[in-house]
Amino acid sequence: MISGAALGGILLSAAIIRADEGMWLFNEPPRKLLKERYNFEPTDSWLEHVQKSSVRFNSGGSGSFVSEDGLVMSNHHVGADSLQKVSDETHNYYRDGFHARTLAEELPCRDLELNVLISIEDVTDRVNAAIKSGSTADEAFAQRRAITAEIEKESTDKTRLRSDVITLFEGGKYHLYRFKKYTDVRLVFAPEQQAAFYGGDPDNFEYPRYDLDVCFVRAYENGKPAHVEHSLKWSEAGAAENELVFVSGHPGHTSRLQTMAELAYTRDQQFPYTLSWLHRSEVMLNAYSGRTEENARRAKKMLFSAQNSRKAREGGLAGLLDPAVMTKKQASEKQLQDFYGKSEHTGDSPWKKIEAAQKVISEHALVYNLLETGQAFNSRYFQIARTLARSAAERGKPNGERLREFRESARESLEFSLFSDEPLYDDFERVKLADSLSWFAEKMGFTNELVQKVLAGKSPRERAAELVAGSNMKDVANRKKLYKADSSEFANSQDTMIQLALLVDFPARDVRKIIEAQAEIKQQAYAEIGKVKFAMEGSNSYPDATFTLRLAFGQVKGYEEDGKHIPFETTIAGLYQRGAEHKNKPPFDIPPSWLKQKSKLDLNTPFNFVSTADIIGGNSGSPVINRNAEVVGLIFDGNIQSLVLDFVYSDFQARAVAVHSSALIEALRKVYDAGPIADELTGKKHSNSK
Amino acid sequence: MISGAALGGILLSAAIIRADEGMWLFNEPPRKLLKERYNFEPTDSWLEHVQKSSVRFNSGGSGSFVSEDGLVMSNHHVGADSLQKVSDETHNYYRDGFHARTLAEELPCRDLELNVLISIEDVTDRVNAAIKSGSTADEAFAQRRAITAEIEKESTDKTRLRSDVITLFEGGKYHLYRFKKYTDVRLVFAPEQQAAFYGGDPDNFEYPRYDLDVCFVRAYENGKPAHVEHSLKWSEAGAAENELVFVSGHPGHTSRLQTMAELAYTRDQQFPYTLSWLHRSEVMLNAYSGRTEENARRAKKMLFSAQNSRKAREGGLAGLLDPAVMTKKQASEKQLQDFYGKSEHTGDSPWKKIEAAQKVISEHALVYNLLETGQAFNSRYFQIARTLARSAAERGKPNGERLREFRESARESLEFSLFSDEPLYDDFERVKLADSLSWFAEKMGFTNELVQKVLAGKSPRERAAELVAGSNMKDVANRKKLYKADSSEFANSQDTMIQLALLVDFPARDVRKIIEAQAEIKQQAYAEIGKVKFAMEGSNSYPDATFTLRLAFGQVKGYEEDGKHIPFETTIAGLYQRGAEHKNKPPFDIPPSWLKQKSKLDLNTPFNFVSTADIIGGNSGSPVINRNAEVVGLIFDGNIQSLVLDFVYSDFQARAVAVHSSALIEALRKVYDAGPIADELTGKKHSNSK
Repeated sequence: MISGAALGGILLSAAIIRADEGMWLFNEPPRKLLKERYNFEPTDSWLEHVQKSSVRFNSGGSGSFVSEDGLVMSNHHVGADSLQKVSDETHNYYRDGFHARTLAEELPCRDLELNVLISIEDVTDRVNAAIKSGSTADEAFAQRRAITAEIEKESTDKTRLRSDVITLFEGGKYHLYRFKKYTDVRLVFAPEQQAAFYGGDPDNFEYPRYDLDVCFVRAYENGKPAHVEHSLKWSEAGAAENELVFVSGHPGHTSRLQTMAELAYTRDQQFPYTLSWLHRSEVMLNAYSGRTEENARRAKKMLFSAQNSRKAREGGLAGLLDPAVMTKKQASEKQLQDFYGKSEHTGDSPWKKIEAAQKVISEHALVYNLLETGQAFNSRYFQIARTLARSAAERGKPNGERLREFRESARESLEFSLFSDEPLYDDFERVKLADSLSWFAEKMGFTNELVQKVLAGKSPRERAAELVAGSNMKDVANRKKLYKADSSEFANSQDTMIQLALLVDFPARDVRKIIEAQAEIKQQAYAEIGKVKFAMEGSNSYPDATFTLRLAFGQVKGYEEDGKHIPFETTIAGLYQRGAEHKNKPPFDIPPSWLKQKSKLDLNTPFNFVSTADIIGGNSGSPVINRNAEVVGLIFDGNIQSLVLDFVYSDFQARAVAVHSSALIEALRKVYDAGPIADELTGKKHSNSK
Repeated sequence: MISGAALGGILLSAAIIRADEGMWLFNEPPRKLLKERYNFEPTDSWLEHVQKSSVRFNSGGSGSFVSEDGLVMSNHHVGADSLQKVSDETHNYYRDGFHARTLAEELPCRDLELNVLISIEDVTDRVNAAIKSGSTADEAFAQRRAITAEIEKESTDKTRLRSDVITLFEGGKYHLYRFKKYTDVRLVFAPEQQAAFYGGDPDNFEYPRYDLDVCFVRAYENGKPAHVEHSLKWSEAGAAENELVFVSGHPGHTSRLQTMAELAYTRDQQFPYTLSWLHRSEVMLNAYSGRTEENARRAKKMLFSAQNSRKAREGGLAGLLDPAVMTKKQASEKQLQDFYGKSEHTGDSPWKKIEAAQKVISEHALVYNLLETGQAFNSRYFQIARTLARSAAERGKPNGERLREFRESARESLEFSLFSDEPLYDDFERVKLADSLSWFAEKMGFTNELVQKVLAGKSPRERAAELVAGSNMKDVANRKKLYKADSSEFANSQDTMIQLALLVDFPARDVRKIIEAQAEIKQQAYAEIGKVKFAMEGSNSYPDATFTLRLAFGQVKGYEEDGKHIPFETTIAGLYQRGAEHKNKPPFDIPPSWLKQKSKLDLNTPFNFVSTADIIGGNSGSPVINRNAEVVGLIFDGNIQSLVLDFVYSDFQARAVAVHSSALIEALRKVYDAGPIADELTGKKHSNSK
């Protein structure tokens, strides 16, 4: 461990990438690193096989072909959306699980699109050539959009494949990705939620774990199971300690270029502020839920979301408060700056530009959070009223000049959300609003002019009651009517929430303008840094995550925590033990199916395990494979220490959490009576009955 | 409702006291107010009877004689300490209740002292005469302490009664209170905790309620039930809507003189800060509790305390954010200032002095909270280590120069706490400490020098693990050994917590000195204001609460909340309904005794009710009586809106919550088979068997 005091003196000499770091591009894999660290050299056909066996869930997640008959493996929580959509009044497949015993029983998933990456082409030169020299940032943006649209259209016309130009290294590179699409996808199997998400919120982001977070779907073509050329074989043994493993999946977003200035802001201001808001929300929702069962039902989704966000921020902040992590970031930033310093530049460096922008953002962040993101007015009624009032105001402007969410391209999702008939409850709106009005007064000071205007001479609680009682935003027909009204009608509205939305609209737009201008400055500066990084490292590096296919690698390995060794794997026996320790109380109750079949199970079967592979949200459902590209596990979470991977890789305690391949087979055969699926996975059975 | 904008123009003309305000002295009762508002004139014998029927629990609470055989009524939560102390491994009377069916079964309470106020004598002139003119504040303090000690000793010698000189109006008056003491007190009856505290934390500070928060003890003299001259009769009907009622009890502490400057600080800084700490603690403790049953048990007391404090602050803050409340405070301050302005003064006014002191406090409050109150090092091990290290350092100083908690007078309670064998758990200490070290870094900034020194190059979590692992503070024998060690031994200690305590000791003492100097300035300024108030209002006013006997009055009355009318009373039927709404799940489960006897009960019996009487913590257990001084109820809580009463009285929504006298009788007779106690209360039976 390097102490903070020594921070200035550390300089890593040559390679920035060490250890098991990296979310690598399939066309620029870490050949050197793998050779050096693990004496492993992936062949081109190994890479092609893994790439084409990997599947992206466009609903947000990863998966893989695990049989030549188009069987796709992912997580229960990745399939959650589909499981809920195929459910009806009499079948709650999300909660209770699903099992198609024949092809005929496989249920079509609504709106689910799977993508398989077929080819990658570097189109950087063509994109850059289209930018006329001397263009302003806005002009360059438009020119870039035009050329990428042209490239994509050409490719689609030629290949009939979905074609996306992906911006990598913040604009250092542009790659054309071609995907085969599957839109006929059918549900095959999912366990009950209690098995998939065993331990609930208390165990979320934690390790050791005992979750069977799996879901199988099948890709169809022409009404029949897709026959796929590439699918992953199953490993007989599964993941073993210290083994080299790979994760092929779609990490969603990382911020590893984030400068020290921005990280310091995130650590010292943004995360602490967000955490205090989340702590407050969690307490408020818990207290509301404690009053009645019905309250608990109403607040459940919001409470889980607050807890999940809180844990994620806690983990991220803990990482940023770790001197080892920050020392590493500092050293890598210094290298980039030194490289940048070797050539001539005019004006401020991108790091200076970001620091300056960040300073402005930091001064306005509080007001932005309160007024524009609406923390001060935590009620759906307010959000709806503001959307309606702004919609009327924005509609009159040319499309390009509107606020982002009111552009034509966003219209469909705007209307979908605005006219949702999701039930809303006055008492819940009142409680949330009263609490947030108090937060507003606490943060801005009670004597602040806008606070005084908003509260209108009442206490937060009274004012919230008045605002909720005087608004008709609950009525969807009323929303539809107002959606057609023009601005003048809003100005005269007697609806209290409309009045509130108008009262705060000017200062809210004002602060948004300031923040967005700085964000634009930062984006351009990050593009500069991205180019520096790319120039310095070339293909010895990997770009920030972009929800496109990447290859990560690492070792199956436990870690030390609070002076204790956390073993790399758990066993099925551990599940029953954990249930017993909790007297089988939720969320630690053993699912009845597992209680019933306990005597049949080999309790020593490995259940979950961890590895040092570099993953982040979006990797959920990714296969964990060995050197032979055989499935040894299924990624479903990261531990709390892995949450810092958004900013920087660490293998000290950060771990990717996976279901062990042996547990999948054991459970399918013995708990779920799903032997045929296990046979299909392990190649013991051929073609499903075609 | 008066809006904030109109605030400057409001001036209440004559009387500051309106409505049902006041915690009045028994020797200066609100005769005029009662006559004007309720056409009620308490006679001297009425006042004497009520005064001498009232009982103070020195453990913190109120009560009353309710039979001539020394039966005393109070709350279950006031008797909690005694209930726990008489429990043993086989009897958990606190949880399960207690019922002595004969005098012989009444169990002696350990360390419980009851006081009954016998007489009040104004000794203001004698105290003031003892202060030599031209004395400094310190000299005056010493002279005052000497004369009050003299007066108390004289009185005790003469009367054999406990004699305390009470400082009222912050030094505007000194009254000599003489008390009859009862030290042989025996437990008679308490229901199970689930009946007494039905609804648990969710219902704490809330209304409507369904709690039977009662406990009976009996005062003994010479081994026999005390025969008392004054005891309250029982009302046949109990409290009725709009009825005038009185509360005779011992409010603990109020801050109604607090200036606008200090209130603004409380509202804008202190409460929001404390709330963010409490929210964070609650979430941390909840998350820890969620991991295992054993964790939940370990954290239970602390979690309840965090929730209770959070609710109390929320309520207080909501009051301070109510313009109506602040307008009233502002007007009363203005009156005092005008009165003060009529005479000549040199130097700053006391309001200016407080404002200046508050400014200094506000600048140092964060560091004070983190370092000196120890929020940054939330572990019992740290607290113990610091107490030991400071004890060694302070012991060498003259008694008067030591930190307050190390003076000889505090030695017994210091050692009691220091050598407590309360079990401590490394993992819990680690979790609390890691969270608080993170809070420290968030609040001071990660790059702060002291933060860096405390974290010593580690993340908060790692550092907490290291600190806990390297300390031997859990071992009581080790504490006893170190308690005898001198400072030099501490300087060389290898115990990590001792090292941490020493590392932060200097800055912690430093900031404490600053805060305490300002507190002294404020105390003197408040004494000046107290004198102004007393000069202006004379006996038309009441002093801030001092945990001495006071008379409050008010009406039995519901209120409007969030546009809904909250009725003044609940019924026993409501209890069962609430249980059913919650499917009988904790903390809303109906106690088995009540389930069993349901069919026997008159479900229309009033259960709890509210009144506008002016109460605060310490009033728990006070009798609610009618014009005839008959018991109509038993105070046990205030609603959330009453929590502002610390600063200012309001009858808008603030209500005192009481058990209805009819519910007490109904439950004693039909749920608990305690007819003889009901008979004793209602005068249907005489002398318990003497």
